[in-house]
Amino acid sequence: MSKELSKMSIEELAPLIASKEISPTELTKSVLEQAISHNPKINAFIRIDEENALLAASKAESEIAEGNYLGPLHGIPMALKDIFFLDGQVSTMGSKIHKDFAADYDATVVSKLKQAGAILIGTLNMHEYAWGGTTNNPHFGPCRNPWNTERIPGGSSGGSGAAVAADMSIASLGTDTAGSIRIPSAACGIVGLKPTHGRVSKHGCFPLSWSLDHVGPMTKTVTDAAIMLEAIAGYDPNDPTTINVPVQKYTQFLKEDIKGLVIGVEENYYFQDIDEEVSARVREGIETLRALGAEIKPVSVPALKHTLFAEYVTILGESGAIHHNNMKERPLDFGEDVRISLGLAEMPSAVDYVMGQQIRRKLVQDFNEVFQSVDVIIAPTLPIVAPKIGEETTLVNGKPSMVTNDLIRLNSPSNLSGLPSLSIPCGLSKGLPVGMQIIGKAFDESTLLKVGFAFEQTKPMGNQKPQLGEAVK
Amino acid sequence: MSKELSKMSIEELAPLIASKEISPTELTKSVLEQAISHNPKINAFIRIDEENALLAASKAESEIAEGNYLGPLHGIPMALKDIFFLDGQVSTMGSKIHKDFAADYDATVVSKLKQAGAILIGTLNMHEYAWGGTTNNPHFGPCRNPWNTERIPGGSSGGSGAAVAADMSIASLGTDTAGSIRIPSAACGIVGLKPTHGRVSKHGCFPLSWSLDHVGPMTKTVTDAAIMLEAIAGYDPNDPTTINVPVQKYTQFLKEDIKGLVIGVEENYYFQDIDEEVSARVREGIETLRALGAEIKPVSVPALKHTLFAEYVTILGESGAIHHNNMKERPLDFGEDVRISLGLAEMPSAVDYVMGQQIRRKLVQDFNEVFQSVDVIIAPTLPIVAPKIGEETTLVNGKPSMVTNDLIRLNSPSNLSGLPSLSIPCGLSKGLPVGMQIIGKAFDESTLLKVGFAFEQTKPMGNQKPQLGEAVK
Repeated sequence: MSKELSKMSIEELAPLIASKEISPTELTKSVLEQAISHNPKINAFIRIDEENALLAASKAESEIAEGNYLGPLHGIPMALKDIFFLDGQVSTMGSKIHKDFAADYDATVVSKLKQAGAILIGTLNMHEYAWGGTTNNPHFGPCRNPWNTERIPGGSSGGSGAAVAADMSIASLGTDTAGSIRIPSAACGIVGLKPTHGRVSKHGCFPLSWSLDHVGPMTKTVTDAAIMLEAIAGYDPNDPTTINVPVQKYTQFLKEDIKGLVIGVEENYYFQDIDEEVSARVREGIETLRALGAEIKPVSVPALKHTLFAEYVTILGESGAIHHNNMKERPLDFGEDVRISLGLAEMPSAVDYVMGQQIRRKLVQDFNEVFQSVDVIIAPTLPIVAPKIGEETTLVNGKPSMVTNDLIRLNSPSNLSGLPSLSIPCGLSKGLPVGMQIIGKAFDESTLLKVGFAFEQTKPMGNQKPQLGEAVK
Repeated sequence: MSKELSKMSIEELAPLIASKEISPTELTKSVLEQAISHNPKINAFIRIDEENALLAASKAESEIAEGNYLGPLHGIPMALKDIFFLDGQVSTMGSKIHKDFAADYDATVVSKLKQAGAILIGTLNMHEYAWGGTTNNPHFGPCRNPWNTERIPGGSSGGSGAAVAADMSIASLGTDTAGSIRIPSAACGIVGLKPTHGRVSKHGCFPLSWSLDHVGPMTKTVTDAAIMLEAIAGYDPNDPTTINVPVQKYTQFLKEDIKGLVIGVEENYYFQDIDEEVSARVREGIETLRALGAEIKPVSVPALKHTLFAEYVTILGESGAIHHNNMKERPLDFGEDVRISLGLAEMPSAVDYVMGQQIRRKLVQDFNEVFQSVDVIIAPTLPIVAPKIGEETTLVNGKPSMVTNDLIRLNSPSNLSGLPSLSIPCGLSKGLPVGMQIIGKAFDESTLLKVGFAFEQTKPMGNQKPQLGEAVK
């Protein structure tokens, strides 16, 4: 190969595996080597499972040798966020309290990936219980951004973002309650897709705030995201929040022309208090799409101004209920920041919560109205590039701003509304990746992926990749 | 007629109207006379609309004369709880704040009744904003129980219960959030049906707590309840909580044999702290059904013990959101008891509310399990007979008990779970009616009505009716 195997994407690897030019075993070894040698610096993994990975690779290899090729994920090694239940194996949720928890069944998405032939090589670092956006984990150590190890990778799926960006996992899954797929995807310069609420099963995924939680792919390319979504999407009788809408062949629509497609741009919320360089990168991205034939239309989504209130009361109420007993009985076993958040969880009133849900309905109505006349809305994923580890406030165009709010404020509308959103790298600012967010109609992931794919073909990141330096032996 | 027209039921009247032996006008006059002459004592009406009632009766009379008989509600005069929107007419919700409110459309159930030919003769007293179970209304005066005018008629649909029991309305509609159809039906000795959540549209019905609110019939007989339900049931695109399950011909199933039907009896919740005579009447009712061929099976519904917590946090959160602005801006325009309740609304936390919703899911699961092996569950509707007006605590078997809790505690499980429940008179205690509650599977109103009908044929009330005494002129 001209390229190290670990550096390749699913779309590059799959045909070579199918044609037996690459063996799952050599690929898995390449990825494991990358993971093992760079993890001491990045701390993306909670567990690297070399033995089982190689066994699964060898099994995939035999299946393919016998002519039983299962499709594009067959033989692809990947690690998942440590929040998915694994039959007989530990899932920590990034916590001390669950550090020895082993489920007796696989999460639906895990069993779907296994059925598709994917090889699980370990579990990835995350913000404790997904309750935060930094992945500065007090129990397993901070995960670091491969572009600059003094910076956070974002979170809560920070290990997934870092591992995929650093070629330590070919692809990954994250969960997203207020941006936890899109934040690390933007911060680490990879592709992250939060599907429509109800599109992907959450059965066997530890909840943070069930009405806001989503599961989705984090990948090197848009095509890879489409491949992963095809594998994990669909109705699941074990998850009553899934909706029985047919799963599309997402990969088939990618190359469709975007000429005439209408892009909505909302200035009052999505472009307020955005770092100037970040804003410039996203606006350049929109201009690129205009040059490809898309039409740009200003839009207005008034209920967006209530986003943070609705997001916080919902997440506080729901996560507070989930962790209520542990907060009463063993509060000191939570890390400090999560303990503070869960302490705040008792503060909003039932009326606040109910009003939050009313805002969500209004937001859905407002978005529905806008989507009568546009195909997608484009916005930044984050108003800033990845902040430094430990930084609680940052300056946005000279104004002090809370990192926590900045991480979630452009992402949360899609959790509150359930609308699908794709974050795709659109360039660098100060040597760190910038993410462009494409928000679409419910169950219209195809259009998001098509727009993302068209944009990706323009190579907005050039050939820039994180420089990991020497492997640590 | 051998009987005054106002004293007859829909099932008795409809064939006589169809055959033109009774005219809608003479019937409406009879009911109006009863209403006008007894209302000063009972105070069931907020408004008696004689002029429009007679116009509508005359129109019905012409239609029928021309051969356009619409069905069993054609020409039937009735008044509805003053909570349903009436195109161009005032609906007060029993409040001062809405005393001049006139909607510009009819509630879906109102337009369905009109389409079926029913004649609206006025609007009925209710607990202010439906937030309570006594109908001791501070703005329109207390509604009184026709069996004993020192007693409450129950509530919040107390005017409906009293008017139907006192032959001042042939039938009525109530709303039920914690028992507000079944409480007055039991207290006034009539039939009240809270249908399955999603069975009847709430569009144009002022909300109290939308996830718990239901609309349903209050009638003199089970057959009348079936006729009314047929008229008002069904999916409504204007109410997203309605569910598109086919409406059955409820009247057709009434006379089916109940032999072999399995009745669940839950002792730990539904029969705890029940007045001994009330309990005896309900147990006699169950024995009557056993004698008709039903089988009795003890059942257990563990989540019932969390009923009051879940009911209160839900109703406080949701009603608190609805009345939030008025409570801030004009609290003194609410009556004292509702103002206190809405003041408490700010106290439960978002976590409490969410835990309440978790309890509801558990309750649904527990009921579903029980309904694998029984057809209905039978319980008292109230643990007591109607208390005195103004009484806040009462003695249940010598133990002091809060009237508010007693009114709702056996009713709320069906609001939390959404399961249909029928209250039917099963005798008297101390000269006041006792209600037996029949709880069924979701969307299985037919079975409830069938059981209720079979029971009703045994004449559990004998010929006892409230004695209204002299008409007030």
